[in-house]
Amino acid sequence: MDFSSFLTSLATSFVIFVVLMLLFTWLSRRPGNHEIYFPNRKLKGLDPYEGLRVTRNPISWIREALSSTEADVIRMSGVDTAVYFVFLTTVLGLFVLGGLVLLPVLLPVSATARFRIKVNETTSEGTFNDLDKLSMAHIEEESPRLWAFVAATYWVSFVAYCLLWKAYKHVANLRAAALMSPEVKSEQFAVVVRDIPPVPEGQTRKEQVDSYFKAIYPDTFYRSMVVTDNKKANKIYDELEGYRKKLARAEAIYAESKKTSPEGTRPTTKTGFLGLFGEKVYAIEYYDEKIKELIPKLENEQKVTLKDKQQSAAVIFFNNRVTAAAASQSLHDMMVEKWTVIDAPESRQLIWTNLPKYFYERQIRQYVIYFIVFLTIFFYMIPIGFISALTTLENLKKLLPFLKPVVDIPAIKTVLEAYLPQIALIIFMALLPNFLLFLSKAEGIPSESHAQRAASGKYFYFTVLNVFIGVTIGSTLFSTFKQIEKDPNSIVKLLAESLPGTATFFLTFVALKFFVGYGLELSRIVPLIIYHLKKKYLCKTEDEVKEAWAPGDLGYATRIPNDMLIFTVVLCYSVIAPLIIPFGVVYFGLGWLVLRNQVLKVYVPSYESYGRIWPHIYIRIIASLILYQVTMVGYFSIKKFVYSPVIIPLPILSVIFIYICQRKFYRFFKSTALEVASHELKETPNMEVVFRSFIPPCLSSEKADEDQFEDALSQVSRTGGVG
Amino acid sequence: MDFSSFLTSLATSFVIFVVLMLLFTWLSRRPGNHEIYFPNRKLKGLDPYEGLRVTRNPISWIREALSSTEADVIRMSGVDTAVYFVFLTTVLGLFVLGGLVLLPVLLPVSATARFRIKVNETTSEGTFNDLDKLSMAHIEEESPRLWAFVAATYWVSFVAYCLLWKAYKHVANLRAAALMSPEVKSEQFAVVVRDIPPVPEGQTRKEQVDSYFKAIYPDTFYRSMVVTDNKKANKIYDELEGYRKKLARAEAIYAESKKTSPEGTRPTTKTGFLGLFGEKVYAIEYYDEKIKELIPKLENEQKVTLKDKQQSAAVIFFNNRVTAAAASQSLHDMMVEKWTVIDAPESRQLIWTNLPKYFYERQIRQYVIYFIVFLTIFFYMIPIGFISALTTLENLKKLLPFLKPVVDIPAIKTVLEAYLPQIALIIFMALLPNFLLFLSKAEGIPSESHAQRAASGKYFYFTVLNVFIGVTIGSTLFSTFKQIEKDPNSIVKLLAESLPGTATFFLTFVALKFFVGYGLELSRIVPLIIYHLKKKYLCKTEDEVKEAWAPGDLGYATRIPNDMLIFTVVLCYSVIAPLIIPFGVVYFGLGWLVLRNQVLKVYVPSYESYGRIWPHIYIRIIASLILYQVTMVGYFSIKKFVYSPVIIPLPILSVIFIYICQRKFYRFFKSTALEVASHELKETPNMEVVFRSFIPPCLSSEKADEDQFEDALSQVSRTGGVG
Repeated sequence: MDFSSFLTSLATSFVIFVVLMLLFTWLSRRPGNHEIYFPNRKLKGLDPYEGLRVTRNPISWIREALSSTEADVIRMSGVDTAVYFVFLTTVLGLFVLGGLVLLPVLLPVSATARFRIKVNETTSEGTFNDLDKLSMAHIEEESPRLWAFVAATYWVSFVAYCLLWKAYKHVANLRAAALMSPEVKSEQFAVVVRDIPPVPEGQTRKEQVDSYFKAIYPDTFYRSMVVTDNKKANKIYDELEGYRKKLARAEAIYAESKKTSPEGTRPTTKTGFLGLFGEKVYAIEYYDEKIKELIPKLENEQKVTLKDKQQSAAVIFFNNRVTAAAASQSLHDMMVEKWTVIDAPESRQLIWTNLPKYFYERQIRQYVIYFIVFLTIFFYMIPIGFISALTTLENLKKLLPFLKPVVDIPAIKTVLEAYLPQIALIIFMALLPNFLLFLSKAEGIPSESHAQRAASGKYFYFTVLNVFIGVTIGSTLFSTFKQIEKDPNSIVKLLAESLPGTATFFLTFVALKFFVGYGLELSRIVPLIIYHLKKKYLCKTEDEVKEAWAPGDLGYATRIPNDMLIFTVVLCYSVIAPLIIPFGVVYFGLGWLVLRNQVLKVYVPSYESYGRIWPHIYIRIIASLILYQVTMVGYFSIKKFVYSPVIIPLPILSVIFIYICQRKFYRFFKSTALEVASHELKETPNMEVVFRSFIPPCLSSEKADEDQFEDALSQVSRTGGVG
Repeated sequence: MDFSSFLTSLATSFVIFVVLMLLFTWLSRRPGNHEIYFPNRKLKGLDPYEGLRVTRNPISWIREALSSTEADVIRMSGVDTAVYFVFLTTVLGLFVLGGLVLLPVLLPVSATARFRIKVNETTSEGTFNDLDKLSMAHIEEESPRLWAFVAATYWVSFVAYCLLWKAYKHVANLRAAALMSPEVKSEQFAVVVRDIPPVPEGQTRKEQVDSYFKAIYPDTFYRSMVVTDNKKANKIYDELEGYRKKLARAEAIYAESKKTSPEGTRPTTKTGFLGLFGEKVYAIEYYDEKIKELIPKLENEQKVTLKDKQQSAAVIFFNNRVTAAAASQSLHDMMVEKWTVIDAPESRQLIWTNLPKYFYERQIRQYVIYFIVFLTIFFYMIPIGFISALTTLENLKKLLPFLKPVVDIPAIKTVLEAYLPQIALIIFMALLPNFLLFLSKAEGIPSESHAQRAASGKYFYFTVLNVFIGVTIGSTLFSTFKQIEKDPNSIVKLLAESLPGTATFFLTFVALKFFVGYGLELSRIVPLIIYHLKKKYLCKTEDEVKEAWAPGDLGYATRIPNDMLIFTVVLCYSVIAPLIIPFGVVYFGLGWLVLRNQVLKVYVPSYESYGRIWPHIYIRIIASLILYQVTMVGYFSIKKFVYSPVIIPLPILSVIFIYICQRKFYRFFKSTALEVASHELKETPNMEVVFRSFIPPCLSSEKADEDQFEDALSQVSRTGGVG
């Protein structure tokens, strides 16, 4: 890629972003779109502009984002979101501090070097280009100028250590503040117990659980809720809810039709598959009948479920937070595989079906899934390598000669050259996240947030291994494949050798990501169009409209790995081609701004894990840092720099840094400190409310009838107890 | 060493053992020696023969040992001792089951092989000898007979897995039974808290600690005891106790002298150093005066200590076992390096001076000490290698020619050949254990039992690395040193190569150990002589006599590593030279018998850790097993056996086995399961007694005056509290 196509790519991206931003300003001012641009405020019962300045000029959202505080973020979107911003700030800080030193120092050092770059070290076209002049590739071998790059590597690493340390401390404080809040949060009073041994003769499961915990916590045990197999009840409940929605819709259609003709048109439906086949009936009566049929069926199934489908897991409620926190950290049975107690996640993020999975089953599932992920990562490596090698224009012309006339038009050629490989890459990556989330849930993980973290971790390793290393090495794969075969240790060297060649590829990749990606994110064009289409042609009832603009959450499982990929790319090139740093700064700066706007006004978090995502992010930042340091070791030795071993202490230092940080901070992210849990509450918790918040919707009765819960949901404390 | 010198060595050892056993029978029957042969029973207030048969024939102790049960051992000597017997039984079982298969199978396979052993594969003399005929060295290279040895390796490994699994389960049950016992054990109601942050303005340390725990455990917190710097108080206390003993002694001497002359001789002493210099005074008056002087000084120092020398650690008492168990497992402050809570060991084994050491100080000390131990292990390697190479007779004659006439006498030659290297080794090893215990305590470990375990672990690695590997390789060191230099990976191969050459050395080493070692152990000749000498010439008072026969404990810190060394040696040779197995069986069988007698009648445990020694023993057994398996891999490849990779799964299997066992069982050995702690007590604990049992002797007041404890020893629960 030559310099002009790079500028074209950059300019196009920027223009797209400006257009999208103006579109956003214009669209978000129209009251009809408020559901799309301010759903979070709307759901919290706030007016879109309440507390904000009314003049809506194109940059007012920037001013609002900048003036918002961390407390605002926590109030509107929770601790997890605040932690995500700590991540963005940390990375941004790293690149700003890195750039402030690296750009003024390294660019002149490179530019003034008098070294002709060899053909194979430059970009794929094999022509010398202006960007390469500013990179480390321009320094001759064994040059003492390399000392400047060594110093730069150290500077970046130490800035990273300082910022990460500060960030970890800050996040721990955020978590502590949230956990010690005087609000009553149901999950802080509960623990989940799994691996309950078989019910002893002459006892029910409920009695077994109650007597066990009653004996250990005679004063603080409140009640237990045995996990049941709700599959059938769930199915009936979903069916029932479906018919209720359809009924509401049919009634709305009927009411609508009355406006045109006085008696209206009674809507009809068919009884067969999807309402498309079978006998034609009047919809309202048909749904009404179905609902009347299903209600007793559900009630019956609820009773059967609660009585006969009790499983080997339970949620235990205590009447204070300290006991729950201590219980979740303590060994209960002398064997770890029985009566395993963990802290309860929020009820909305409990994965109920995973709770009764047994200890050894979970262990085995975990290893099997690690193996599948391993295979996935390494079998995708090959196709990605191919794609990256094929999608240079030269190769395309060779493989698909009929494209030649089109491709040779200069304008199209430039655009294609700029975007073709990147687009292939982006589409490719879109297929994976759901598969990984599915795998993570299959591990037997008990909470949604944990599953998301696990999926995010897998996705991170996938992106770094495949996109970064894969593309980098892939671009020189065919020429050097035999070299790897001969000496597998040469992979670090190979990685380092191919870095400068793909620098401009990643430069445009980052630019595309931030301008187009964040432009789309801010303008919400796609959700807006879908919403208006749905509203106009599909939605008949209020609930349906509400569903149509439901904003969703930030989607950490893919967002964080994608950010981490950009971070890894920019970090690894930061010293080799410092020109990439400003792109990193713009990516994370713009991301901070756009997402600040989005979390305050748009996204609604679907769970709260009190910052547990942080250690996970932290480990991956350090992993990237180590990759960067190892790459630099390789790159310096390619430059035949005799002092390149001076870099070797850095990865070792990083490992020690991980160890110290995890040792100091991690345990608090795994469990709640008792001192934190012992802070006073605003009010005495209403344990009944706490307990009820954990009842799954398909089992909750509409009549406030207590007796039906007797079977699986114990009530020891109130009736006097078992033991 | 030829066959006759081996037999001489064996026969001599056996004769020594028989003599010592007869001596034991004869000596233990004399009532004047009962303090030496039955001190444990005496201290427990039992008659030496109570409940035992009266006829004291030479083997009656064997019958008694065999008929004793595990419950007897636990009653007389605690859970730790019972766990040590589980270790002996497991190892014995392994060798018996191994020997039953290996001896009848492998010996004929070796003996009938028609292969001339090469000179460098036999013993140091370079002559063919009868023992080697029965070893694997006698099998020719690439022979299909090697399959029998592969099968034997697998058999030994699988027997080991089965027995270890059973043993781990059994020990866990022993621990559970002890921890759930209805007896009130003070340490189960206490936790130790370390790393208390600096005292806030306007609070005392005591108030800080009390308010912190009162807030977290409002109902179950009983009282706290702040750790103080007792160095000075201890010194005064020791001085006082010393004078008290001297006073009693002087009075006894005076009373004695009255028997000969009516007015007696008033004993005198000198006021200077050690009572040898300075002014001559009447002893009784002088000591009396000193004691009167010291008592108020001690009381004053106690007050100062309790008030002004409070440190950053405390012992916290709860009024039930479950809370204490849960507290010791829970994170209290959000940072792990503040308010670190661990379960309290028994008060007698608390290392008070280590408690106030701070988190990071402990961490750093630990790594520094690991490094020192590493250096110790590897710098001792060289001298041991030299000793083993020098102490062959040939070398001795060369180096010390004046010994030649003595050494050439056949009888002396045989004895020297049999014992010389072993004796050098044993003396060498005697120097180390105290040094390692000192190092372990310097790590900042809070309890004596933990320090003993740590020392024992260090000693194990030392013995295995230096004695076993060192001697084995050392014997061929000089000839092959250059080979290692060229290829450091050859060390496994080298180890395997030199194994058969040193087989007979270890055979005699084991024989010496068990016959002479256990003979001395059983007969207690040395303690007996010391006791009688002391009693006759030194002891004047009852207390002094009691001190003279105090039996001490089993001394796990050296006993277990020594047993482990024998175990490692026998295990590693079990397939190569199966003839060693009977020696292993005799060693552990005899050990079991002799020690059963000793723990029931002699030794008094100095602490009880409820079987925490087991995971430690277990890990080292598996480490030996892996060493054995790796050695076998090496040895098979030396035999040019093409199928030698079939052994490779074994070490991997061992690692998986460690992982599973530790995952399943270890946590219960680290902390008490709540279910176990929740078992009912025989009586409501008297918390005052529990609390007082933790007061160090130098601070305990003789007047039952409560007020003096107010400063460092809080009494929140009874006076109404702080918060």
